[in-house]
Order: sequence, then C-alpha cells, then structure tokens
Amino acid sequence: MRIGIDVDSGERPFQELIQGALESIEKYKDISVYFIGRSDRIKRYFPHLETNNKVFLVDAKEVIYMDESPILALKKKKDATVVVGCRMIKDGALDFFFSPGNTGATVACSVLTLGLINHIKKPSLATFFPRISEGETMLLDIGANPEATEENLYHNSILGLAYYTIIWKKKYPTIGLLNIGAENIKGNKNLKKAFELLRENQYFIGNVEGYNIFNGSVDIVVCDGFTGNSILKFAESIKDYFLAVLKDSFLTHSKNKILSYTLNLVGYIDEQKKILYDKILPKFYGAAPVLGVKGGILVGHGMSSSKDVKNAIDLAYFLYENNYLQNMNNLVNKFLKKH
Amino acid sequence: MRIGIDVDSGERPFQELIQGALESIEKYKDISVYFIGRSDRIKRYFPHLETNNKVFLVDAKEVIYMDESPILALKKKKDATVVVGCRMIKDGALDFFFSPGNTGATVACSVLTLGLINHIKKPSLATFFPRISEGETMLLDIGANPEATEENLYHNSILGLAYYTIIWKKKYPTIGLLNIGAENIKGNKNLKKAFELLRENQYFIGNVEGYNIFNGSVDIVVCDGFTGNSILKFAESIKDYFLAVLKDSFLTHSKNKILSYTLNLVGYIDEQKKILYDKILPKFYGAAPVLGVKGGILVGHGMSSSKDVKNAIDLAYFLYENNYLQNMNNLVNKFLKKH
Repeated sequence: MRIGIDVDSGERPFQELIQGALESIEKYKDISVYFIGRSDRIKRYFPHLETNNKVFLVDAKEVIYMDESPILALKKKKDATVVVGCRMIKDGALDFFFSPGNTGATVACSVLTLGLINHIKKPSLATFFPRISEGETMLLDIGANPEATEENLYHNSILGLAYYTIIWKKKYPTIGLLNIGAENIKGNKNLKKAFELLRENQYFIGNVEGYNIFNGSVDIVVCDGFTGNSILKFAESIKDYFLAVLKDSFLTHSKNKILSYTLNLVGYIDEQKKILYDKILPKFYGAAPVLGVKGGILVGHGMSSSKDVKNAIDLAYFLYENNYLQNMNNLVNKFLKKH
Repeated sequence: MRIGIDVDSGERPFQELIQGALESIEKYKDISVYFIGRSDRIKRYFPHLETNNKVFLVDAKEVIYMDESPILALKKKKDATVVVGCRMIKDGALDFFFSPGNTGATVACSVLTLGLINHIKKPSLATFFPRISEGETMLLDIGANPEATEENLYHNSILGLAYYTIIWKKKYPTIGLLNIGAENIKGNKNLKKAFELLRENQYFIGNVEGYNIFNGSVDIVVCDGFTGNSILKFAESIKDYFLAVLKDSFLTHSKNKILSYTLNLVGYIDEQKKILYDKILPKFYGAAPVLGVKGGILVGHGMSSSKDVKNAIDLAYFLYENNYLQNMNNLVNKFLKKH
C-alpha cells in the first residue's frame, strides 16, 4: 500500500507526523509512505530519511490554512499539499492520502479532482462511537456537507451503509435518521422527505435520537454535517472531562485517602484509567475517509499527533486489504434505490 | 410558592411523580403543590392526600400524547393537563407549572396562553453541563424551536444571558455561537447573520465548537433547537455508558480481581461511582424553564421520575426566591440591542 501523508497542513509539527508514520512502517511489511510538504525542511530534520526505501518525499510548497475559504484557496494555491496529494491519487501513484489540514479544502479538492460515485451528489464523513453492546455506532455526516437536503441525507445513509458493511462486516446493519423525536411527524421538511426516501429501505428503522448513539439500538445514525460535527466535537471533549473527574474522585474526594494513595502506588488506578481510556476511544479514532469520492482520501483532526497518523495508516491498511474503493462503488450501487 | 405538577402526561406512572412532590413538601415550609390530572384516580391511590393542607387536586381529564401534533392537539383538547396548567399560571393561581409531557405542546401552549417578553419572537429552552472549571456551561436552545433564524439565535443569546445571570449570579458570563469552526466565515447564512447581530455585544466571544461545552472556555453556548436537542440527548446517554464501562473495568478486567472484589466489599468502588455520578449530572438536572414566556413554565423529560420532580421543585423554588419572572423581563430588556 502506498500512502501519502500531508505533513504541513496540520496544527502539530511535521516532525511528529513523520515520526508516527515511521513507526507504522516498522509495523507493516508492504507499505510505502510519501511525505507531502516542504521537502527541504523535512530533509534538514531527518537527514537519513532517503536511506529508507519505503519513504519518499514529495515537494509541495504551499499549505491551505484552517481559516481559508476552501474554494478560493484551491484556485490560488496549485502547489498546496492537498492539491498534490489528490492529484497523486488521481494519477494512480497513491492508494491513500491522509491530510490533517482544513477539512473543507480536502473534501472540496478530492471532489473536484476525483469526482463522486455515480448518483452521489455530495461526499460524507463518518465517525464511530463505542457503545455498551458489541460493535460501534457510526455517525455521519460529521462535516463534509453542513447543510443537507433530503437527497443528501438519503445518500449519507447509503454511503454509511456501504462503509459500515466494509468496516464491521455486519450483514444487516441498521440505519436511523437523527431527529428530535422518534415520531415521523417531527423535524423539518428535509428530514420528513428523507424519511420518505428511506421508508422502503430494508435497513432503515426510522427516526432515532441522540440517546441511541451510545445505547447500541442502531448501527448507522444519519444527520446533516453541522449537527454531526457538533456532536463529534462535544463527544471528543467528554473523555477529557471524564478522565479529569475520575482522577479527581480517586485522588481527592475519597474518604479513604490513604487507600487511594496506596492503590495509586501499586498502579491499580493507572491500570483502570488505561482500560477506561481505551474503551472511550472508538476504532480507527482520528481519521475518516471522504465517503463517496472515487479515491482513498482520509481526513484527520487539525491536532493530529503521531499516534493519530499511526491510526490513520492502520485504517488505510485495513481499507486497502478490504478492497475499499471497489466495494464502496459496488455496495452504493446495490443499496441505492433505483429511481 | 405554588407549583402545579402535570402528573398524567409523562411516561412514568403518576404515583411516582406524586411521591416525589410529597417528599419536596417536607423539605420546604412555604410551598403548596397542585397535582393536575385525573383527580378521581389520584384519590383512589392516595386516599389521604386531601388531609395535607399543602396539596390540591386539579382535575384535567385529557392528556396530549408524545406523538401528537402540538397545535392540533391544543385546539382539540381543552381539558388537557398542560392547557389547565398554563391557564392557572395566567390566572395568577400558580407561580410555576411543571410538565414532563410533550415538550412541543407545553411550549406552544405557554406561548399562546401567556405570550412572550417584549421583542422576543420565539421561546427557548436551556440546559446546563458540568465542566472541568468552576460553574457550568449553558446550552440553548435545546428544542423549543428546532429551526432558528438569525434573529432567533440572537434572542436565544439574550435569553440565555439573562437566565445565566439569574442562576449563576455571574457578572460577566460569556456567550459563544456554536459553529463548525471558530472562524467567522464558517456556517450557514443564519449563523453568519447572527454573528453580526452579536458582534457588538460585550458578552459575545465569537464562534465556539462542541469542545467548548465541557472545557469551560465559554458560559453560554447558543445554537438552534435541533442541534441542541441532539447534543443534550447524546450527553444524557453518556453517563449510562460511562458507568457501565466503569463497572466493567473495575469488576471484570482488572489484573487484580481479588483486589477489585475486596474494594467492592468495603464499599470503595460504590463510593467512587456515586461521586462520579454526581459530577456528571448538572445542576437542576431534569427541568428547564420555557425562557421568554411570561410565566413560570418548566418542562421535563418524558421519563421524569420522582427524583426529577424533586429537582424541578428545587429549581422552581430557587427561581421563585430569585424573582425569576421580573428579573428575566428586566435583564432581557437591558441586554437587548436597541434597534
């Protein structure tokens, strides 16, 4: 597998991202990594990088910043990391491209460069949440398309269904439409129309609510990109809050301070915290493919760290092994209602 | 303080709700409770209720169900619990009215019966989230008005500011507009226009994201009712998930099963869980006033239990003591930009 990593668009230093990718190279036998960014600078910090025959440096001198308007920036900056990455995908030189930069720019660039699967009008981004029951819950769209029409919501469902099938290999995943009540009279016009479009889909179980993401009663929760993005960012901050509360309750508030202290010394509390932390983070945390585009494009957080790069490579490798692009295309065509 | 409790609209048995209110009567010296519902049935289950001189039974034979369209139901069911409750507020017979029923119906009924504070076009519902730093973060609207115009978003900010001032007695609470990025070029037209309306407000700190609800960087997070409702319901399910994970990690996964078992025996783990649970639940959890209407109307979850009724009465009592209605009116007028 050949993966391109945009090392200059994120908010963390490029050295960290490169470090993460280098560790992944050790893990997988058959991958090569293309670092896309200012190659002079990379060489200065990693002088022996070229001796690694699994590493390539692709020079891209520009970066699209987080606060830039994607469309304007894409017109102006032809040598931006995301432009180069998407072009290499189009050219067949890369199997996957990961960028932790401006999500809007990566999404727009991938659509413009690679196009969308037949019938799909807008791409979608999905994330997973852990849950009490087995498996994970998928939420989409988490920000590829903030304002969704009924058709976009319907296509999100289909893209989600296809992707869930690939990731979780579940035969009958269920789809729910996020709404403010389970009754189908609720919600705005777009939601009511999307409900009608989904009504005859055998995987569709009706409207669901925010509760259902964690309780495991549905596999795929479909919403517009604004709502999904807000829920995702809120959820991410929870683990920090929860771990702070946990630490506080163990070390400060206990009636048995000595007991807490002793437990901490024997590593008991640290062990519990690690288990908790792992359970709070979903599978492939930190990267999401731009669903619907004809190419393996992965977006990450701006704050992506070396660990997130490793997760992104794990995800890319999993998708590569599971014939992601072809399967997405086939499954979307299979699930899409013939109009 | 005189409070009316709608005991028939919720999803839990009326006996539970009555039981909760009866416990609150013990706690406060100067409150009286009006149970609004089918009084024959109440009398059958609580034959000695009338001997309590702080209790009154108000007969209302109808209920607006969760899946009914609020406006149609309000036209048809003149003897519904919410209709009777709002009328009693209008009549000056009650200071507060609490309903765990169809939120849309309670909101619509209170607006139609009591009207809105000058200049306010739509009511709003707020909830609080605990956070790492001191105080709590307010999120509104959580569902009074699912689709918000720029003016509605602006009014949500003003209503939130007034209510936050009353509840938290903070002199300079900060307002943030929930968006999918901190840059003010993000978001749809309504959000951009709302940003402009708020720009000169001295409490406004700009766009915020889902992260900011828990991290304490802003006091009041403003959004449309659809997004707010989805985040709230998602958040509520988190505590269940966390407690399940916590229990699991303590009792199953530890390398030191014997230690876990021993800790459980001495009550250590239960104590920790209780502290955690308390920290995850915000202040006045379970009830929210319909902000903007000229009357003390509180809505609760459909699943409101006896404990939630007690919380609702605690909130009502706090608001009563803090001259809620007059303060809301004065503060909204003070904060509202003069057009």
